[in-house]
Amino acid sequence: MAAKTPKHVAVILFPGFQLLDITGPLDTLNILSRSTPLRLSILAATLDPVSTALPISTPYLSTLTPSSPPDSPFAQSIVPTHTFDTAPAGIEVLIIPGGFGSRAEENVTPVVEFVQAAYPTLTYLLTVCTGSAIVAKSGVLDGRRATSNKKAFAWVKAQNAEVKWVAKARWVVDGNVWTSSGVAAGIDMIYAWVEDIWGTDVAEELADSSEYERNRDSKKDRFAERWGATD
Amino acid sequence: MAAKTPKHVAVILFPGFQLLDITGPLDTLNILSRSTPLRLSILAATLDPVSTALPISTPYLSTLTPSSPPDSPFAQSIVPTHTFDTAPAGIEVLIIPGGFGSRAEENVTPVVEFVQAAYPTLTYLLTVCTGSAIVAKSGVLDGRRATSNKKAFAWVKAQNAEVKWVAKARWVVDGNVWTSSGVAAGIDMIYAWVEDIWGTDVAEELADSSEYERNRDSKKDRFAERWGATD
Repeated sequence: MAAKTPKHVAVILFPGFQLLDITGPLDTLNILSRSTPLRLSILAATLDPVSTALPISTPYLSTLTPSSPPDSPFAQSIVPTHTFDTAPAGIEVLIIPGGFGSRAEENVTPVVEFVQAAYPTLTYLLTVCTGSAIVAKSGVLDGRRATSNKKAFAWVKAQNAEVKWVAKARWVVDGNVWTSSGVAAGIDMIYAWVEDIWGTDVAEELADSSEYERNRDSKKDRFAERWGATD
Repeated sequence: MAAKTPKHVAVILFPGFQLLDITGPLDTLNILSRSTPLRLSILAATLDPVSTALPISTPYLSTLTPSSPPDSPFAQSIVPTHTFDTAPAGIEVLIIPGGFGSRAEENVTPVVEFVQAAYPTLTYLLTVCTGSAIVAKSGVLDGRRATSNKKAFAWVKAQNAEVKWVAKARWVVDGNVWTSSGVAAGIDMIYAWVEDIWGTDVAEELADSSEYERNRDSKKDRFAERWGATD
Protein backbone atom coordinates (compact mmCIF):
# COMPACT_ATOMS: atom_id res chain seq x y z
CA MET A 1 0.00 0.00 0.00
CA ALA A 2 1.27 3.46 -0.88
CA ALA A 3 2.45 5.72 1.90
CA LYS A 4 -0.34 8.17 1.18
CA THR A 5 -3.71 6.79 0.13
CA PRO A 6 -5.81 9.40 -1.63
CA LYS A 7 -9.46 9.86 -0.69
CA HIS A 8 -10.83 12.72 -2.76
CA VAL A 9 -11.35 11.83 -6.41
CA ALA A 10 -12.64 14.31 -9.01
CA VAL A 11 -13.63 13.60 -12.59
CA ILE A 12 -14.16 16.11 -15.39
CA LEU A 13 -17.04 15.99 -17.84
CA PHE A 14 -17.47 18.01 -21.04
CA PRO A 15 -20.01 17.76 -23.88
CA GLY A 16 -19.10 14.88 -26.17
CA PHE A 17 -17.09 12.94 -23.57
CA GLN A 18 -16.71 9.20 -24.22
CA LEU A 19 -18.98 7.43 -21.75
CA LEU A 20 -16.84 4.37 -21.00
CA ASP A 21 -13.68 6.47 -20.63
CA ILE A 22 -15.02 7.73 -17.34
CA THR A 23 -17.61 5.14 -16.27
CA GLY A 24 -15.14 2.26 -16.56
CA PRO A 25 -12.81 3.71 -13.93
CA LEU A 26 -15.71 5.09 -11.87
CA ASP A 27 -17.49 1.75 -11.63
CA THR A 28 -14.36 0.21 -10.12
CA LEU A 29 -14.04 3.10 -7.67
CA ASN A 30 -17.75 2.87 -6.83
CA ILE A 31 -17.19 -0.68 -5.62
CA LEU A 32 -13.93 0.23 -3.88
CA SER A 33 -15.80 2.99 -2.01
CA ARG A 34 -17.87 0.35 -0.18
CA SER A 35 -14.78 -0.76 1.73
CA THR A 36 -12.49 2.27 1.51
CA PRO A 37 -13.17 5.91 2.39
CA LEU A 38 -13.52 7.74 -0.93
CA ARG A 39 -15.16 10.98 -1.91
CA LEU A 40 -16.21 11.96 -5.45
CA SER A 41 -16.62 15.35 -7.10
CA ILE A 42 -17.93 15.52 -10.67
CA LEU A 43 -16.79 18.75 -12.33
CA ALA A 44 -18.06 20.50 -15.44
CA ALA A 45 -18.38 24.00 -16.87
CA THR A 46 -21.93 24.32 -15.47
CA LEU A 47 -24.18 22.24 -13.21
CA ASP A 48 -26.33 21.16 -16.17
CA PRO A 49 -26.20 17.44 -16.96
CA VAL A 50 -23.38 16.79 -19.43
CA SER A 51 -24.20 14.78 -22.55
CA THR A 52 -22.02 12.34 -24.41
CA ALA A 53 -23.42 14.03 -27.53
CA LEU A 54 -21.70 17.08 -28.90
CA PRO A 55 -23.76 20.27 -28.89
CA ILE A 56 -25.82 20.69 -32.06
CA SER A 57 -23.85 23.86 -32.76
CA THR A 58 -20.56 21.97 -33.09
CA PRO A 59 -19.46 22.64 -36.69
CA TYR A 60 -18.35 19.09 -37.49
CA LEU A 61 -21.15 17.30 -35.62
CA SER A 62 -22.81 16.20 -38.85
CA THR A 63 -19.64 14.42 -39.92
CA LEU A 64 -19.54 12.40 -36.71
CA THR A 65 -23.13 11.32 -36.19
CA PRO A 66 -24.65 10.98 -39.64
CA SER A 67 -27.28 8.49 -38.54
CA SER A 68 -28.46 10.00 -35.29
CA PRO A 69 -30.97 12.86 -35.42
CA PRO A 70 -29.23 15.92 -33.92
CA ASP A 71 -32.28 16.87 -31.86
CA SER A 72 -32.51 13.37 -30.40
CA PRO A 73 -29.00 11.92 -30.28
CA PHE A 74 -28.20 8.42 -29.10
CA ALA A 75 -26.56 9.71 -25.95
CA GLN A 76 -26.58 9.86 -22.16
CA SER A 77 -26.15 12.69 -19.66
CA ILE A 78 -24.42 12.59 -16.27
CA VAL A 79 -25.07 15.16 -13.53
CA PRO A 80 -22.10 17.21 -12.22
CA THR A 81 -21.72 18.00 -8.54
CA HIS A 82 -19.61 21.16 -8.97
CA THR A 83 -18.51 23.61 -11.64
CA PHE A 84 -14.85 24.32 -12.34
CA ASP A 85 -15.35 27.60 -10.47
CA THR A 86 -16.93 25.98 -7.39
CA ALA A 87 -14.73 22.86 -7.26
CA PRO A 88 -14.07 21.89 -3.63
CA ALA A 89 -10.63 22.19 -2.11
CA GLY A 90 -8.53 19.12 -1.43
CA ILE A 91 -8.94 17.20 -4.67
CA GLU A 92 -6.19 14.56 -4.66
CA VAL A 93 -6.97 12.54 -7.78
CA LEU A 94 -8.19 14.01 -11.06
CA ILE A 95 -9.47 11.78 -13.86
CA ILE A 96 -10.06 13.20 -17.35
CA PRO A 97 -11.84 11.28 -20.13
CA GLY A 98 -11.55 11.75 -23.87
CA GLY A 99 -14.05 11.52 -26.68
CA PHE A 100 -14.85 13.60 -29.74
CA GLY A 101 -15.67 16.50 -27.41
CA SER A 102 -11.96 16.75 -26.65
CA ARG A 103 -11.56 18.26 -30.12
CA ALA A 104 -13.99 21.11 -29.46
CA GLU A 105 -12.06 24.22 -28.45
CA GLU A 106 -14.89 25.55 -26.27
CA ASN A 107 -14.80 22.32 -24.24
CA VAL A 108 -11.07 22.12 -23.93
CA THR A 109 -10.19 25.65 -22.81
CA PRO A 110 -11.84 25.52 -19.35
CA VAL A 111 -10.47 22.02 -18.71
CA VAL A 112 -6.94 23.11 -19.62
CA GLU A 113 -7.23 26.10 -17.29
CA PHE A 114 -8.54 23.89 -14.47
CA VAL A 115 -5.72 21.36 -14.92
CA GLN A 116 -3.08 24.09 -14.87
CA ALA A 117 -4.46 25.45 -11.60
CA ALA A 118 -5.12 22.07 -9.95
CA TYR A 119 -2.11 19.98 -10.96
CA PRO A 120 0.42 21.40 -8.46
CA THR A 121 -1.62 20.10 -5.51
CA LEU A 122 -2.78 16.79 -7.04
CA THR A 123 -1.50 13.46 -5.78
CA TYR A 124 -2.41 11.76 -9.07
CA LEU A 125 -3.58 12.86 -12.51
CA LEU A 126 -5.15 10.16 -14.69
CA THR A 127 -6.37 10.46 -18.28
CA VAL A 128 -8.19 8.00 -20.49
CA CYS A 129 -8.18 8.01 -24.30
CA THR A 130 -7.86 11.51 -25.81
CA GLY A 131 -8.07 12.99 -22.32
CA SER A 132 -4.28 13.09 -22.62
CA ALA A 133 -4.59 15.40 -25.65
CA ILE A 134 -6.45 17.88 -23.44
CA VAL A 135 -3.87 17.66 -20.67
CA ALA A 136 -1.08 17.97 -23.25
CA LYS A 137 -2.36 21.48 -23.97
CA SER A 138 -1.92 22.40 -20.29
CA GLY A 139 1.85 21.85 -20.45
CA VAL A 140 1.70 19.29 -17.62
CA LEU A 141 2.84 16.51 -19.97
CA ASP A 142 5.80 18.43 -21.43
CA GLY A 143 8.85 16.17 -21.25
CA ARG A 144 6.78 13.29 -19.88
CA ARG A 145 5.98 9.90 -21.40
CA ALA A 146 2.29 9.52 -22.18
CA THR A 147 -0.09 7.55 -24.38
CA SER A 148 -3.55 8.05 -25.86
CA ASN A 149 -6.21 6.66 -28.19
CA LYS A 150 -4.51 4.73 -31.01
CA LYS A 151 -7.00 5.53 -33.76
CA ALA A 152 -6.58 9.25 -32.98
CA PHE A 153 -2.83 9.08 -32.25
CA ALA A 154 -1.61 11.26 -35.14
CA TRP A 155 -4.04 14.01 -34.11
CA VAL A 156 -3.06 13.64 -30.46
CA LYS A 157 0.66 13.97 -31.22
CA ALA A 158 -0.04 17.13 -33.21
CA GLN A 159 -1.48 18.79 -30.09
CA ASN A 160 1.92 19.01 -28.37
CA ALA A 161 5.28 17.79 -29.68
CA GLU A 162 6.95 18.37 -26.28
CA VAL A 163 5.28 15.23 -24.93
CA LYS A 164 7.13 11.90 -25.26
CA TRP A 165 4.21 10.10 -26.89
CA VAL A 166 4.37 6.29 -26.53
CA ALA A 167 2.37 4.51 -29.21
CA LYS A 168 2.68 0.88 -28.08
CA ALA A 169 1.31 0.86 -24.53
CA ARG A 170 -1.92 -0.07 -22.79
CA TRP A 171 -1.13 2.68 -20.31
CA VAL A 172 1.90 4.76 -19.27
CA VAL A 173 2.97 5.99 -15.84
CA ASP A 174 5.32 8.95 -15.55
CA GLY A 175 5.65 10.28 -12.03
CA ASN A 176 2.17 10.93 -10.71
CA VAL A 177 0.61 11.09 -14.18
CA TRP A 178 -1.12 7.99 -15.54
CA THR A 179 -2.33 8.05 -19.17
CA SER A 180 -4.21 5.21 -20.84
CA SER A 181 -4.93 4.25 -24.41
CA GLY A 182 -8.39 4.41 -25.91
CA VAL A 183 -11.67 3.83 -24.09
CA ALA A 184 -11.52 0.29 -22.61
CA ALA A 185 -7.83 0.67 -21.74
CA GLY A 186 -8.91 3.00 -18.95
CA ILE A 187 -10.39 0.01 -17.12
CA ASP A 188 -7.05 -1.80 -17.13
CA MET A 189 -5.29 1.37 -16.02
CA ILE A 190 -7.61 1.93 -13.05
CA TYR A 191 -7.07 -1.62 -11.78
CA ALA A 192 -3.30 -1.15 -12.10
CA TRP A 193 -3.59 2.17 -10.25
CA VAL A 194 -5.72 0.61 -7.49
CA GLU A 195 -3.17 -2.20 -7.24
CA ASP A 196 -0.34 0.32 -6.92
CA ILE A 197 -2.06 2.10 -4.02
CA TRP A 198 -4.19 -0.50 -2.22
CA GLY A 199 -2.36 -3.67 -3.24
CA THR A 200 -2.85 -6.70 -5.45
CA ASP A 201 -5.44 -8.45 -3.28
CA VAL A 202 -7.76 -5.45 -3.34
CA ALA A 203 -7.40 -4.99 -7.11
CA GLU A 204 -7.98 -8.69 -7.82
CA GLU A 205 -11.01 -8.87 -5.54
CA LEU A 206 -12.51 -5.84 -7.31
CA ALA A 207 -11.84 -7.21 -10.80
CA ASP A 208 -13.19 -10.66 -9.91
CA SER A 209 -16.29 -9.10 -8.36
CA SER A 210 -16.84 -7.19 -11.60
CA GLU A 211 -16.06 -10.37 -13.60
CA TYR A 212 -13.46 -8.38 -15.51
CA GLU A 213 -10.56 -10.13 -17.27
CA ARG A 214 -7.72 -7.67 -16.73
CA ASN A 215 -5.02 -6.89 -19.26
CA ARG A 216 -2.16 -6.60 -16.78
CA ASP A 217 0.80 -5.82 -19.05
CA SER A 218 1.01 -2.09 -19.68
CA LYS A 219 3.41 -2.71 -22.60
CA LYS A 220 1.20 -5.21 -24.41
CA ASP A 221 -0.90 -3.39 -26.97
CA ARG A 222 -2.02 -4.67 -30.34
CA PHE A 223 -4.00 -1.54 -31.12
CA ALA A 224 -1.00 0.65 -31.95
CA GLU A 225 -0.29 -1.59 -34.94
CA ARG A 226 -3.99 -2.07 -35.68
CA TRP A 227 -4.44 1.69 -36.12
CA GLY A 228 -0.96 2.54 -37.40
CA ALA A 229 0.03 4.61 -34.38
CA THR A 230 3.73 5.49 -34.10
CA ASP A 231 5.80 7.39 -31.52
CA MET B 1 -26.96 -9.47 -40.89
CA ALA B 2 -30.25 -10.40 -39.25
CA ALA B 3 -33.42 -10.17 -41.31
CA LYS B 4 -34.76 -7.44 -39.06
CA THR B 5 -32.31 -4.91 -37.66
CA PRO B 6 -33.70 -3.15 -34.61
CA LYS B 7 -33.42 0.63 -34.28
CA HIS B 8 -35.15 1.65 -31.07
CA VAL B 9 -33.20 0.73 -27.95
CA ALA B 10 -34.45 1.41 -24.42
CA VAL B 11 -32.56 0.99 -21.17
CA ILE B 12 -33.97 0.92 -17.66
CA LEU B 13 -32.44 2.74 -14.70
CA PHE B 14 -33.32 2.35 -11.01
CA PRO B 15 -31.65 3.67 -7.86
CA GLY B 16 -28.61 1.60 -7.04
CA PHE B 17 -28.03 0.34 -10.59
CA GLN B 18 -24.49 -0.82 -11.38
CA LEU B 19 -22.94 1.85 -13.59
CA LEU B 20 -20.85 -0.35 -15.90
CA ASP B 21 -23.72 -2.83 -16.38
CA ILE B 22 -25.46 -0.27 -18.53
CA THR B 23 -22.68 2.10 -19.67
CA GLY B 24 -20.56 -0.76 -21.07
CA PRO B 25 -23.23 -1.78 -23.59
CA LEU B 26 -24.33 1.83 -24.17
CA ASP B 27 -20.84 3.05 -25.04
CA THR B 28 -20.64 0.41 -27.77
CA LEU B 29 -24.06 1.40 -29.08
CA ASN B 30 -23.13 5.10 -28.89
CA ILE B 31 -20.30 4.43 -31.35
CA LEU B 32 -22.47 2.16 -33.49
CA SER B 33 -25.06 4.96 -33.71
CA ARG B 34 -22.59 7.09 -35.69
CA SER B 35 -22.88 4.72 -38.64
CA THR B 36 -26.21 2.98 -38.03
CA PRO B 37 -29.65 4.50 -37.39
CA LEU B 38 -30.34 3.96 -33.69
CA ARG B 39 -32.65 5.66 -31.23
CA LEU B 40 -32.32 5.57 -27.45
CA SER B 41 -34.90 5.91 -24.69
CA ILE B 42 -33.74 5.95 -21.06
CA LEU B 43 -36.56 4.81 -18.78
CA ALA B 44 -37.02 5.20 -15.04
CA ALA B 45 -39.78 5.56 -12.45
CA THR B 46 -39.55 9.38 -12.63
CA LEU B 47 -37.66 11.92 -14.76
CA ASP B 48 -35.30 12.72 -11.89
CA PRO B 49 -31.66 11.75 -12.48
CA VAL B 50 -31.11 8.19 -11.26
CA SER B 51 -28.19 7.56 -8.93
CA THR B 52 -25.98 4.51 -8.67
CA ALA B 53 -26.32 5.01 -4.92
CA LEU B 54 -29.21 3.42 -3.10
CA PRO B 55 -31.63 5.84 -1.43
CA ILE B 56 -30.61 6.69 2.11
CA SER B 57 -33.88 5.12 3.26
CA THR B 58 -32.88 1.67 2.01
CA PRO B 59 -32.78 -0.47 5.17
CA TYR B 60 -29.57 -2.35 4.38
CA LEU B 61 -27.70 0.59 2.85
CA SER B 62 -25.37 0.84 5.83
CA THR B 63 -24.26 -2.74 5.31
CA LEU B 64 -23.29 -2.03 1.70
CA THR B 65 -21.52 1.31 1.88
CA PRO B 66 -19.84 1.46 5.26
CA SER B 67 -17.16 3.88 4.16
CA SER B 68 -19.14 6.32 2.09
CA PRO B 69 -21.11 9.06 3.85
CA PRO B 70 -24.81 8.42 3.07
CA ASP B 71 -25.48 12.10 2.40
CA SER B 72 -22.58 12.30 -0.04
CA PRO B 73 -22.18 8.88 -1.62
CA PHE B 74 -19.46 8.02 -4.11
CA ALA B 75 -21.95 7.79 -6.95
CA GLN B 76 -23.11 9.12 -10.29
CA SER B 77 -26.53 10.03 -11.70
CA ILE B 78 -27.82 9.57 -15.25
CA VAL B 79 -30.77 11.52 -16.66
CA PRO B 80 -33.79 9.53 -17.94
CA THR B 81 -35.64 10.55 -21.10
CA HIS B 82 -39.00 8.96 -20.20
CA THR B 83 -40.82 7.42 -17.27
CA PHE B 84 -42.23 3.89 -17.41
CA ASP B 85 -45.65 5.51 -17.83
CA THR B 86 -44.59 7.78 -20.71
CA ALA B 87 -42.30 5.30 -22.51
CA PRO B 88 -42.56 5.78 -26.26
CA ALA B 89 -44.17 3.16 -28.48
CA GLY B 90 -42.04 0.96 -30.72
CA ILE B 91 -39.26 -0.06 -28.35
CA GLU B 92 -37.54 -3.02 -30.02
CA VAL B 93 -34.60 -3.69 -27.69
CA LEU B 94 -34.75 -3.46 -23.90
CA ILE B 95 -31.58 -3.57 -21.80
CA ILE B 96 -31.79 -4.00 -18.02
CA PRO B 97 -28.80 -3.61 -15.69
CA GLY B 98 -28.27 -5.09 -12.25
CA GLY B 99 -26.68 -3.77 -9.11
CA PHE B 100 -27.55 -3.75 -5.43
CA GLY B 101 -30.65 -1.74 -6.30
CA SER B 102 -32.07 -4.88 -7.92
CA ARG B 103 -32.61 -6.20 -4.39
CA ALA B 104 -34.80 -3.28 -3.35
CA GLU B 105 -38.46 -4.23 -3.74
CA GLU B 106 -39.56 -0.65 -4.45
CA ASN B 107 -37.14 -0.54 -7.39
CA VAL B 108 -38.00 -3.92 -8.79
CA THR B 109 -41.80 -3.80 -8.83
CA PRO B 110 -42.20 -1.09 -11.51
CA VAL B 111 -39.50 -2.70 -13.67
CA VAL B 112 -41.18 -6.11 -13.45
CA GLU B 113 -44.50 -4.58 -14.45
CA PHE B 114 -42.89 -2.73 -17.37
CA VAL B 115 -41.14 -5.89 -18.61
CA GLN B 116 -44.36 -7.90 -18.45
CA ALA B 117 -46.16 -5.28 -20.54
CA ALA B 118 -43.31 -4.63 -22.98
CA TYR B 119 -41.88 -8.11 -23.63
CA PRO B 120 -44.54 -9.38 -26.09
CA THR B 121 -43.61 -6.67 -28.62
CA LEU B 122 -39.83 -6.64 -28.06
CA THR B 123 -37.42 -7.93 -30.69
CA TYR B 124 -34.71 -8.46 -28.05
CA LEU B 125 -34.48 -8.40 -24.27
CA LEU B 126 -30.98 -8.12 -22.78
CA THR B 127 -29.96 -8.18 -19.13
CA VAL B 128 -26.58 -7.62 -17.48
CA CYS B 129 -25.58 -8.95 -14.06
CA THR B 130 -28.50 -9.22 -11.60
CA GLY B 131 -30.78 -7.59 -14.16
CA SER B 132 -31.75 -11.19 -14.90
CA ALA B 133 -32.98 -11.56 -11.31
CA ILE B 134 -35.40 -8.70 -11.94
CA VAL B 135 -36.62 -10.17 -15.20
CA ALA B 136 -36.93 -13.59 -13.55
CA LYS B 137 -39.65 -12.10 -11.36
CA SER B 138 -41.63 -11.10 -14.46
CA GLY B 139 -42.05 -14.73 -15.55
CA VAL B 140 -40.42 -14.02 -18.92
CA LEU B 141 -37.49 -16.32 -18.09
CA ASP B 142 -39.64 -19.26 -16.93
CA GLY B 143 -38.38 -22.39 -18.69
CA ARG B 144 -35.55 -20.47 -20.35
CA ARG B 145 -31.79 -20.78 -19.91
CA ALA B 146 -30.26 -17.67 -18.32
CA THR B 147 -27.23 -16.53 -16.38
CA SER B 148 -26.40 -13.76 -13.92
CA ASN B 149 -23.77 -12.31 -11.57
CA LYS B 150 -21.64 -15.15 -10.17
CA LYS B 151 -21.00 -13.66 -6.74
CA ALA B 152 -24.77 -13.22 -6.28
CA PHE B 153 -25.77 -16.46 -8.02
CA ALA B 154 -27.32 -18.24 -5.02
CA TRP B 155 -29.52 -15.20 -4.33
CA VAL B 156 -30.44 -14.91 -8.01
CA LYS B 157 -31.50 -18.57 -8.25
CA ALA B 158 -33.70 -18.10 -5.18
CA GLN B 159 -35.71 -15.43 -7.02
CA ASN B 160 -37.28 -17.96 -9.41
CA ALA B 161 -36.66 -21.72 -9.57
CA GLU B 162 -38.55 -22.00 -12.89
CA VAL B 163 -35.58 -20.48 -14.72
CA LYS B 164 -32.89 -22.84 -16.07
CA TRP B 165 -30.00 -20.98 -14.44
CA VAL B 166 -26.62 -21.60 -16.09
CA ALA B 167 -23.72 -20.95 -13.74
CA LYS B 168 -20.76 -21.41 -16.08
CA ALA B 169 -21.35 -18.94 -18.91
CA ARG B 170 -20.12 -15.49 -19.89
CA TRP B 171 -23.56 -14.94 -21.42
CA VAL B 172 -26.54 -17.07 -22.47
CA VAL B 173 -28.89 -16.69 -25.43
CA ASP B 174 -32.33 -18.30 -25.32
CA GLY B 175 -34.62 -17.20 -28.11
CA ASN B 176 -34.67 -13.41 -28.13
CA VAL B 177 -33.48 -13.14 -24.52
CA TRP B 178 -29.78 -12.48 -23.88
CA THR B 179 -28.53 -12.60 -20.28
CA SER B 180 -24.96 -11.88 -19.21
CA SER B 181 -22.90 -12.59 -16.14
CA GLY B 182 -21.75 -9.85 -13.79
CA VAL B 183 -20.86 -6.29 -14.72
CA ALA B 184 -18.04 -6.48 -17.30
CA ALA B 185 -19.57 -9.55 -18.97
CA GLY B 186 -22.21 -7.22 -20.39
CA ILE B 187 -19.56 -5.69 -22.65
CA ASP B 188 -18.74 -9.07 -24.18
CA MET B 189 -22.44 -9.82 -24.57
CA ILE B 190 -23.16 -6.58 -26.41
CA TYR B 191 -20.36 -7.19 -28.91
CA ALA B 192 -21.69 -10.72 -29.50
CA TRP B 193 -25.18 -9.30 -29.95
CA VAL B 194 -23.96 -6.63 -32.38
CA GLU B 195 -22.08 -9.35 -34.26
CA ASP B 196 -25.24 -11.46 -34.46
CA ILE B 197 -27.23 -8.60 -35.98
CA TRP B 198 -24.76 -6.41 -37.89
CA GLY B 199 -22.02 -8.95 -38.59
CA THR B 200 -18.49 -9.75 -37.50
CA ASP B 201 -16.80 -6.87 -39.34
CA VAL B 202 -18.96 -4.27 -37.61
CA ALA B 203 -18.44 -5.83 -34.17
CA GLU B 204 -14.67 -6.11 -34.63
CA GLU B 205 -14.34 -2.55 -35.92
CA LEU B 206 -16.28 -1.30 -32.88
CA ALA B 207 -14.23 -3.32 -30.39
CA ASP B 208 -10.92 -2.31 -32.00
CA SER B 209 -12.00 1.34 -32.01
CA SER B 210 -12.72 1.05 -28.30
CA GLU B 211 -9.44 -0.86 -27.79
CA TYR B 212 -11.43 -3.61 -26.11
CA GLU B 213 -10.09 -7.18 -25.93
CA ARG B 214 -13.23 -9.24 -26.36
CA ASN B 215 -13.97 -12.49 -24.54
CA ARG B 216 -15.66 -14.24 -27.47
CA ASP B 217 -16.53 -17.64 -25.98
CA SER B 218 -19.85 -17.47 -24.18
CA LYS B 219 -19.11 -20.80 -22.45
CA LYS B 220 -15.73 -19.76 -21.07
CA ASP B 221 -16.18 -18.40 -17.55
CA ARG B 222 -13.76 -18.72 -14.67
CA PHE B 223 -15.94 -16.64 -12.35
CA ALA B 224 -18.52 -19.38 -11.67
CA GLU B 225 -15.80 -21.41 -9.95
CA ARG B 226 -14.21 -18.29 -8.42
CA TRP B 227 -17.44 -17.44 -6.62
CA GLY B 228 -18.81 -20.98 -6.13
CA ALA B 229 -21.79 -20.52 -8.43
CA THR B 230 -23.65 -23.72 -9.41
CA ASP B 231 -26.66 -24.46 -11.63
